[in-house]
Amino acid sequence: LVSKLPNVGTTIFTVMSKLATEIGAINLSQGFPGFDCSPELVTLVEHYLRKGFNQYAPMTGVPALREALAQKTTDLYNVSYDPETEITVTSGATEAIFAAVTAVIRPGRDAGPDEVIVFEPAYDSYVPAIELNGGVPVYVTLTPPDYTIDWDVVREKITDKTRLILVNTPHNPTGRVWTTDDLNQLASVVRDRDIWIVSDEVYEHILLDGRQHNSLMTHPDLRERTFIIGSFGKTFHITGWKIGYCLAPADLTTEFRKIHQYLTFSTVTPIQYALADYLKEPERYLSLPVFYERKRDLFLDGIRGSRFTFKPAEGSFFQTVSYAAITDEPDYDLAIRLTKEIGVASIPVSVFYNQKNDYKVLRFCFAKDDAILQEAAERLSRL
Amino acid sequence: LVSKLPNVGTTIFTVMSKLATEIGAINLSQGFPGFDCSPELVTLVEHYLRKGFNQYAPMTGVPALREALAQKTTDLYNVSYDPETEITVTSGATEAIFAAVTAVIRPGRDAGPDEVIVFEPAYDSYVPAIELNGGVPVYVTLTPPDYTIDWDVVREKITDKTRLILVNTPHNPTGRVWTTDDLNQLASVVRDRDIWIVSDEVYEHILLDGRQHNSLMTHPDLRERTFIIGSFGKTFHITGWKIGYCLAPADLTTEFRKIHQYLTFSTVTPIQYALADYLKEPERYLSLPVFYERKRDLFLDGIRGSRFTFKPAEGSFFQTVSYAAITDEPDYDLAIRLTKEIGVASIPVSVFYNQKNDYKVLRFCFAKDDAILQEAAERLSRL
Ligand SMILES: CSCCC(=O)C(=O)O
Ligand SMILES: CSCCC(=O)C(=O)O
Repeated sequence: LVSKLPNVGTTIFTVMSKLATEIGAINLSQGFPGFDCSPELVTLVEHYLRKGFNQYAPMTGVPALREALAQKTTDLYNVSYDPETEITVTSGATEAIFAAVTAVIRPGRDAGPDEVIVFEPAYDSYVPAIELNGGVPVYVTLTPPDYTIDWDVVREKITDKTRLILVNTPHNPTGRVWTTDDLNQLASVVRDRDIWIVSDEVYEHILLDGRQHNSLMTHPDLRERTFIIGSFGKTFHITGWKIGYCLAPADLTTEFRKIHQYLTFSTVTPIQYALADYLKEPERYLSLPVFYERKRDLFLDGIRGSRFTFKPAEGSFFQTVSYAAITDEPDYDLAIRLTKEIGVASIPVSVFYNQKNDYKVLRFCFAKDDAILQEAAERLSRL
Repeated sequence: LVSKLPNVGTTIFTVMSKLATEIGAINLSQGFPGFDCSPELVTLVEHYLRKGFNQYAPMTGVPALREALAQKTTDLYNVSYDPETEITVTSGATEAIFAAVTAVIRPGRDAGPDEVIVFEPAYDSYVPAIELNGGVPVYVTLTPPDYTIDWDVVREKITDKTRLILVNTPHNPTGRVWTTDDLNQLASVVRDRDIWIVSDEVYEHILLDGRQHNSLMTHPDLRERTFIIGSFGKTFHITGWKIGYCLAPADLTTEFRKIHQYLTFSTVTPIQYALADYLKEPERYLSLPVFYERKRDLFLDGIRGSRFTFKPAEGSFFQTVSYAAITDEPDYDLAIRLTKEIGVASIPVSVFYNQKNDYKVLRFCFAKDDAILQEAAERLSRL
């Protein structure tokens, strides 16, 4: 069997988490919380399991959950999505991203393949989703320490074949957050073109230092052409439950659902009902900025005396850190060495670049217990 | 946005289940049990939820579940699969089928697209999975009342471009079960060719009248080129939990996992642990033949005096019934009319044929409570 993804090996997340577990290292690599979800949420799932909500959910998601998502979206962003025709529940954000890319991108036999603008560093599932659909990624490279977007570069990369732009804010791995200027620039770039947008906003509730989340849905010219991708995993500390969703205008949702229906058809029923109830208290997600700001600061305070340099993450639960002043080892080698020698696992940011650009930056996940973060920072500071 | 699946509307399962619910009809259409799963299984899930097994499972599935599946496979079929390199847990059989087809099929720019042999009637996700990957389905049409395979026809349809054959035994919608002769014929067809096989065996534990399941894994020449697709949904009455799996030789599993990792990455963690425990008592699935045989017979006894004709299902929880002696209405129209007029929802079998061949056959799901099956049969007999 000839591989359709010859360059794909084991993901860095699996590699680092496995190594950390084997060694007993502090695992700040893969992005998942080191603490449990709320017992109330577990109780709700138990309730629906016991009540016998154990058969297929509707393909689009259970109505109560779609309605709760519509309500949250209206309350937070003052943008409305129709639960019946514009909201779809998926098996995690990964499935939603794959479905949205699949709905849009084609190999385009004679005209040549569709092109997709990808800002890198980029989450590792974007490019395989594009390539499996016969599309071609076109990279716009962002660099430390600011990772800001040069919109003139974006304009240069747009061609008649550009069909999609992949956006991610707050951004994994850099923690950067899109500004309203970024939204306006994007709107001007896509105006009068057949370009759609997939906006991965799974960290929408983790905005730090008083920042606000500039969801692409809040710009009317973007809303009409964007698949907004959300997830409960990062918001409610349930990365293992694999529930996400897609908000998109009805015409896009129609095509999105045709794909979703054959990728997974539907998503775990009792969990959907539980989340519909759990969403009713906004404090459950509105408390996240304060919660995560403290954790980020604990970690940063811990390494402040060291020769690591950094800009505090603006959003997400990831902090990138430059080690250029300490060593010029390749970042992959250093990540492995730190895991083995001082027992702290991280992610080398080069893995998020197509050309493996190595800017001497590591990514640390700070969704961990305070004592763990302090211990990790202390070990790192000894370098 | 130009549709990549222009012919796909709302699935028949959604249409009929929705109509049945609106009308309050007995729903023998969509294939899901009308009764709940075992409370022991719920208790196990609760246990792992409470214990905090709520973050990402390994991409391949939790080791305990892969090991339990390997054990079951050895015990039942005397065939071994290595949990580390040959077993992958997925978000339902639907995802597993999509991933396996995606791993193999390409649009093949110059040489022309890959071809896939599809026996029809066929489950509705097979063909979209092929088409989204740029492949072309080549149909082998099976007809009532026997739905047996003419292997000479299969041989005629094989070309140099054939890359995959899709198998489903026990078969949805017809209830037919593959014989050892079918296995041998298939082995002779694929011998010395670069043809892989996806075998959808989600009804492997529902074999009726003392029949045995002839899994493709039991034929050594087939095992080496087959993705075996299984599911817990149909076996443990948990269609809404969406957990399936794929057993395949290591080289195929490597490619399968590359796709799975970007489709959904991983599957609900606490449910995986619960199923690993639950699998340890074989009686939990070995009891299914007797359980479902009774239900099939209840239903068939109820319509035996009528002008419906049928051959008892050999496997699965579906019974097909011919109404040719009663009316020559199109099967789709009749299915709608029966739902509205006598309150019994079924699936018109024409929807499982590419050309919508209408042989005047309806499919009834008999995974329902006894009283429901009797009431449905009584209403149908009055026609
Ligand atoms: C799906 S595993 C990766 C989790 C994650 O979002 C990350 O670590 O970036
Ligand atoms: C995924 S909904 C369809 C369920 C099923 O297997 C069937 O009814 O054939």
